[in-house]
Amino acid sequence: MEVLDAIDRRHSYRGPYLDQPVPHEDLVQIVEAGLKAPSGCNAQTTRFVIIDDGDLLRQIGELPSINNTAMRQAKAMIACVIDREPGPVSAGLSFQIEDCSAAVENMLLAITGLGYASVWMDGWLRATGSEDREVINRLLEVPEEKTVRVILPVGVPKREVRGPKKKPFHERAWFNCYGCTGAGG
Amino acid sequence: MEVLDAIDRRHSYRGPYLDQPVPHEDLVQIVEAGLKAPSGCNAQTTRFVIIDDGDLLRQIGELPSINNTAMRQAKAMIACVIDREPGPVSAGLSFQIEDCSAAVENMLLAITGLGYASVWMDGWLRATGSEDREVINRLLEVPEEKTVRVILPVGVPKREVRGPKKKPFHERAWFNCYGCTGAGG
Repeated sequence: MEVLDAIDRRHSYRGPYLDQPVPHEDLVQIVEAGLKAPSGCNAQTTRFVIIDDGDLLRQIGELPSINNTAMRQAKAMIACVIDREPGPVSAGLSFQIEDCSAAVENMLLAITGLGYASVWMDGWLRATGSEDREVINRLLEVPEEKTVRVILPVGVPKREVRGPKKKPFHERAWFNCYGCTGAGG
Repeated sequence: MEVLDAIDRRHSYRGPYLDQPVPHEDLVQIVEAGLKAPSGCNAQTTRFVIIDDGDLLRQIGELPSINNTAMRQAKAMIACVIDREPGPVSAGLSFQIEDCSAAVENMLLAITGLGYASVWMDGWLRATGSEDREVINRLLEVPEEKTVRVILPVGVPKREVRGPKKKPFHERAWFNCYGCTGAGG
């Protein structure tokens, strides 16, 4: 699939999956797309746990706070792991959120390109007092100083993958000055 | 270009550009890729200023803290703008850094797919007391409550675009448990 097509067709998918496994080699290819993402000072801070063990998938999919079908029926998941308290890489700055997000976006595009669908599960894991996040950290044997930050369910979508309505170009982008219209816009 | 090829070929490029303009329609296509990126709760928080005005490009490219040739010779730039103090979108959480990063990664892949090269300019703008960031905010007429967070220079690369050495798969990714090797890994 062409890169611009993949960008166009990638949408958050929370619906049911077909009962088709995701082959090991596809999961490796998807995570390799994540590994190839840029990272601040090339520090490569994000780690990945690929989940294709049926017991683990069931235990995560049955957590009380799961609120979508894709997570319940996922044939595989990819967990992105970062430091609980990201330290500075350069000039007192951390880039772990940026690194993780770029890796996630690369993987979502690879997932789309390979015919699967997913959704960026994030706020659910970051919500204050998320007990489920700690359950997942224990299930995946994540070290104490790190935490799962994002999970991507993976599977072949049973329904059409459609995106939400988006704002038009001129409401979010301009030429040469913020909010400009007319000749300069 | 195939999406997995674009992911593979995207590298940070800080070298010289050919003296070839970046057509208006290519810049629109690149920013449209950014607009299509996912955003937390579909809040679409990132704004984009496309810079193709020669005077503006020169003023930014000549700022004292610019330390790479790509920024000095860029035929165009794309500035990503977010809130200075991102507020909560859902459950007390902000997703602006994630939103901006996903948009930047989409645009870097579109840039690669269209035959251009770029580099994610970020820490330079975030460094404490960055006077140049405020100069750029003024040049682009960015509202007081917002700031340029990332800039992407755009142009046709004069040199080969090569990436840095990356850690191998098994040092950053595992199956079913963090850091596992052997049968489960």
